[in-house]
This record gives sequence, C-alpha cells and structure tokens, in this order.
Amino acid sequence: RIVRLKCRCMKISPCINPKTVKEIQIIPQTAMCHRTEIVIIRNNKEAVCLDPNTQCTKRIIQTYTKE
Amino acid sequence: RIVRLKCRCMKISPCINPKTVKEIQIIPQTAMCHRTEIVIIRNNKEAVCLDPNTQCTKRIIQTYTKE
Repeated sequence: RIVRLKCRCMKISPCINPKTVKEIQIIPQTAMCHRTEIVIIRNNKEAVCLDPNTQCTKRIIQTYTKE
Repeated sequence: RIVRLKCRCMKISPCINPKTVKEIQIIPQTAMCHRTEIVIIRNNKEAVCLDPNTQCTKRIIQTYTKE
C-alpha cells in the first residue's frame, strides 16, 4: 500500500553548516500540506528538512540572498 | 551536440506575484556556476529565474520564512 504523504518533511533536522548546502528548496504550504517546508539538498546528496522559523534556517537562506 | 550549461538560469525575470509560487529553489554558486541562482517553480509549472539581490526576491523568500 503506497502512503501518499501530504507533506515532504517527516522529521526536522537541527541546524546544519551552510557550506554543506547544494540546494535549498522552499515549498509554500498547500491544500495538501498546511505548513511551509524547507528541504536542504546537501553536497553529499542527502536531503534534510529544516524549520522555516528558526534563526539557523534564516541565516542559511540569507547567506545566499544578501548583496 | 548537447551543450552542458554551467548555470541553470539564462534569463532573469522581473518580479512575480508571490501567490503564484509553487516552489523556490536557491542554488548556491559552484565551481561550474559562479553565481547564486534563484529558480521559482510557479503553480502553472513554469520555471523562472529571479535575481537573488533584488528586494522582490527577498520579499518573496521572506514571505515563507517569517514567524
């Protein structure tokens, strides 16, 4: 039986080192998943989820969107 | 002949409406592509690139990472 997950993130990881980030995916909430999700693809191809509201996540995102 | 693009974004779009955003991808610079790229997947499945340093892009990202 294939369980169709509503949200992608089942587990939230603690803070990670921004230097290990290969890609950041921000997925706004939808009818299927009622929360914004942040998926980080790391250089080792591992995918981890972060809490959108923590300073750590904001710092990582700001690392790549400042002047 | 397949041209392997170093960067994903060939064209930068003007500001878009945050409500049309299905997913935001932030791709830090790499040895292959010397700039951070922001790829927005829209609800209509279209992919557009935004300039990481504009207020518009920051506003869209902040929409989904504030408390």
